[in-house]
Amino acid sequence: MKKSYIALAALTLVSGLASAQSSVTVYGKVDLGMVLDSGNASGKSIRLSSGVTGGSRLGFKGVEDLGGGLKAGFTLETGYCADSAAGNPATVKDSSGKTVGTTTVPNFCTGSNAFMGRQAHGDLTGAFGAIVAGRQFSLGYETISRLDPFGSGYAGQTVNLVDPSGTRLNNSVRYTTPSVYGITASGEIQFGETTGNWQAGRETGGQVAWANGPAFVAFTLYNLENPNGTGAARKNYQLGGTYDFGVVKVHLMGQRGEGDPTGAKKVDVLDLLGGVTVPLAGGSLLASYVHHNDKTAAAVSSNTGDEDSSQWGIGYNYPLSKRTAIYTSYAKITNDHNQFGKAATFTVGNATEAGTGNKGFNLGVVHNF
Amino acid sequence: MKKSYIALAALTLVSGLASAQSSVTVYGKVDLGMVLDSGNASGKSIRLSSGVTGGSRLGFKGVEDLGGGLKAGFTLETGYCADSAAGNPATVKDSSGKTVGTTTVPNFCTGSNAFMGRQAHGDLTGAFGAIVAGRQFSLGYETISRLDPFGSGYAGQTVNLVDPSGTRLNNSVRYTTPSVYGITASGEIQFGETTGNWQAGRETGGQVAWANGPAFVAFTLYNLENPNGTGAARKNYQLGGTYDFGVVKVHLMGQRGEGDPTGAKKVDVLDLLGGVTVPLAGGSLLASYVHHNDKTAAAVSSNTGDEDSSQWGIGYNYPLSKRTAIYTSYAKITNDHNQFGKAATFTVGNATEAGTGNKGFNLGVVHNF
Amino acid sequence: MKKSYIALAALTLVSGLASAQSSVTVYGKVDLGMVLDSGNASGKSIRLSSGVTGGSRLGFKGVEDLGGGLKAGFTLETGYCADSAAGNPATVKDSSGKTVGTTTVPNFCTGSNAFMGRQAHGDLTGAFGAIVAGRQFSLGYETISRLDPFGSGYAGQTVNLVDPSGTRLNNSVRYTTPSVYGITASGEIQFGETTGNWQAGRETGGQVAWANGPAFVAFTLYNLENPNGTGAARKNYQLGGTYDFGVVKVHLMGQRGEGDPTGAKKVDVLDLLGGVTVPLAGGSLLASYVHHNDKTAAAVSSNTGDEDSSQWGIGYNYPLSKRTAIYTSYAKITNDHNQFGKAATFTVGNATEAGTGNKGFNLGVVHNF
Repeated sequence: MKKSYIALAALTLVSGLASAQSSVTVYGKVDLGMVLDSGNASGKSIRLSSGVTGGSRLGFKGVEDLGGGLKAGFTLETGYCADSAAGNPATVKDSSGKTVGTTTVPNFCTGSNAFMGRQAHGDLTGAFGAIVAGRQFSLGYETISRLDPFGSGYAGQTVNLVDPSGTRLNNSVRYTTPSVYGITASGEIQFGETTGNWQAGRETGGQVAWANGPAFVAFTLYNLENPNGTGAARKNYQLGGTYDFGVVKVHLMGQRGEGDPTGAKKVDVLDLLGGVTVPLAGGSLLASYVHHNDKTAAAVSSNTGDEDSSQWGIGYNYPLSKRTAIYTSYAKITNDHNQFGKAATFTVGNATEAGTGNKGFNLGVVHNF
Repeated sequence: MKKSYIALAALTLVSGLASAQSSVTVYGKVDLGMVLDSGNASGKSIRLSSGVTGGSRLGFKGVEDLGGGLKAGFTLETGYCADSAAGNPATVKDSSGKTVGTTTVPNFCTGSNAFMGRQAHGDLTGAFGAIVAGRQFSLGYETISRLDPFGSGYAGQTVNLVDPSGTRLNNSVRYTTPSVYGITASGEIQFGETTGNWQAGRETGGQVAWANGPAFVAFTLYNLENPNGTGAARKNYQLGGTYDFGVVKVHLMGQRGEGDPTGAKKVDVLDLLGGVTVPLAGGSLLASYVHHNDKTAAAVSSNTGDEDSSQWGIGYNYPLSKRTAIYTSYAKITNDHNQFGKAATFTVGNATEAGTGNKGFNLGVVHNF
Repeated sequence: MKKSYIALAALTLVSGLASAQSSVTVYGKVDLGMVLDSGNASGKSIRLSSGVTGGSRLGFKGVEDLGGGLKAGFTLETGYCADSAAGNPATVKDSSGKTVGTTTVPNFCTGSNAFMGRQAHGDLTGAFGAIVAGRQFSLGYETISRLDPFGSGYAGQTVNLVDPSGTRLNNSVRYTTPSVYGITASGEIQFGETTGNWQAGRETGGQVAWANGPAFVAFTLYNLENPNGTGAARKNYQLGGTYDFGVVKVHLMGQRGEGDPTGAKKVDVLDLLGGVTVPLAGGSLLASYVHHNDKTAAAVSSNTGDEDSSQWGIGYNYPLSKRTAIYTSYAKITNDHNQFGKAATFTVGNATEAGTGNKGFNLGVVHNF
């Protein structure tokens, strides 16, 4: 449903005047919903929000056939706030690194607050597989979004509790093999770009995945070096799959988090996800349960270890057309050591917002163009 | 004159290959003019300016027919400076709210300095009327722009003196009824989005309008709550109309401003506008007189009340095509208590700039695409 | 290869439904390369970089035929980082102008870090010549990019050592005569826009150029007033040309820099460039030598005058299609007084980065759309 591309393809057929070379596709998403958060000691929050099921965005992409099976392509995607032009707060630090104030900078809502900050990459694909270079989703985030019935959006998203493996990687290159019997292998590297220390801040990841008809299984590794390049600040081992039985699609995932960040306690986390997608009344019913077991010492400041949290979420998506849908969702988080009258440790957010309470409700419309 | 849309409509007719679903329209405005300000004690200012008659902008919009008379649409519009890439100054405050410095952030020229900051909204229209949600013009601003012969642009714009009713509303929803005998009613709400206090910073407004052939009349209310949610910081009651006699179109408006902002004097303002649009030599002659009567105590610091200001403005717009025009304008403000050798209280600006003096002249070209 | 434009041209032929009025062209560049810098005392730097041969960009442009040979057009072009969404550091100053901290603002990579910051101008062309107003390249920069075999990109770019004459001019107007026997004359003015002092910060420039078949010669002047408007802060006199012999294209340029900036030593610089472009094995071999002779007293802080630097650079560009190419380049700078174990004075950069060492290597792919 990408208009410029279709237009040009059609022109090629009808008139023969436009060449296959010529293509840039303008695409995007407008997602606007009412959000009601509760469970925060300060009170409820009612908001018109942008990007509940997925960040509101404007993108440009294209593919050029270079011949011999080789193709060059690009994706450039900017987030924006469909609800508001309020700025984004930015911290000011003095020369010693101490915070001395705050200011306000333009707000792109998603993607590290940058123009083309959601995605910006060039691609080469061919018989050898695919190389993608630039700013792109990490293998770990891309896969957790596929394993999550909510697709890393709505109130019920898994990443409310579970580490998103960096979400997007700057200065990164990914290689993916061709599919053999449905199996693909991928490797990714994010350059740290520190002069004189090329390990510092570097990320390396990998994946083996199998997709075949109704089945999908993937094992994914995410490994981020600390800023000194002396070891892993964060390692995620993620294993999960989905199976579509027709009347119900089942989602399962486990993610183990380790790491030894400089100046902080060792990371020791285990996350489990179970969920379903059920075709219902012309739409899709979404539901999941997530358990987050964090044994990182003093993960909660008032506690000396073993912090458990869990979330259940439910949602419904009803398509008005192939491009437009109405959605609703509700989720609740139980924070093990902080749930009784204290401020929530984890909050129910959505694809764009962190949320303000441990309970959240969404109702909105998403339109893709 | 929206190209992608036309292209696709044409393709549908010619080839039947493109579906009606596919539509995104890229549109915009490039407005560049020479501006000469005088009346400032520091001297004259000569500038190449962007957005004199209306902010220079780039926009994306689309409409999807959902069937049964229901349509989904969107408008995403970003301002830019067609003249310069100079940054926008941003204030830095410390944790107590005291200003401690300034920095420079990217400049979008209009629309609260944000990407998609001019407009960003999704629309649903049908037999029930229209619902528009997101960031949009206030009813009060939209109407004052229609009542002003200069359309809230040029040197002669009414909003040099008159409160623009918030111009644009973040996090807002507007509902407009279908037109019955040319009459429509509208209501708008801007959510304040303060956790635990949903009145704080909220705006509510409404309008009844009648449009029939050469006649247009509207009564509009704008009501902004203060940051504590304890009452109106600003209320505008606006009544105005236009009538097109053919040889001349007459514009009249009165706006009453009230309000009790926290920590400041009560607002007590009355504004009157009279203007004409006259077809002349293939173009349009624009002229208006605005009187601003401000009885807010100590509106002028050197005065204890009753500050009057008035402006007369004249302009001419000559179209070179349906999309491109040459324009010129001149306006002069008489500031009642501050006009003799003192700095101007009100300055002659234009759609994008506040201006530097109480007299201003514009000459430029505006191109719509 | 501008798709919307082609689409509409084709439609006009086929269907007659689209008018010639309707045109907006979306275009751009994705340039991603590996960069390896050395020669910095802190060590080597390996990076994935955006915009090595030319800044990665997204642009919108259009032309409208106004009849009688008159045309109105526009170009709006924004830089972006194809590699990363890391922010851009911004300095915070207090009211006395002293730096008190830094913050992070959105990063557009090229073009003074602004939306539409690479180019934003409106054009009128006709029998009288061409007038371009807005933000545009200076005559001096545009010409040095044409005289440089590397086109102000790659490791080997001339502007690593040579002053770029302001690169882009804000608030500027350029007039160019029609071509007579291949000769054109141009004049440019950048308004300083200081209230009460219209010389302050103003730039004026001019050029006479001759282009005829394989030959191009240009003499260009750049003259920037200081912030007080009391004289030239920087004057560049540039003379250069290229001649295409078929088996080799020869590039020559000399640039003399003068100026008397307030509070600094008088500028006294002479730059010389010699280079070649050689068609080779389906691609282009690029090579140049640049000598920079700076007699500005104390140009190097440890020295009392006469600082020489020189650079040689080599590169190769191999097109995979009309729009996509592989490139590589290497350059080395010899800094006269600072080359032996000291920090480099000049560094090998590329079209987007300043670089970190006096030696630089690039290998990448550039895709135009």
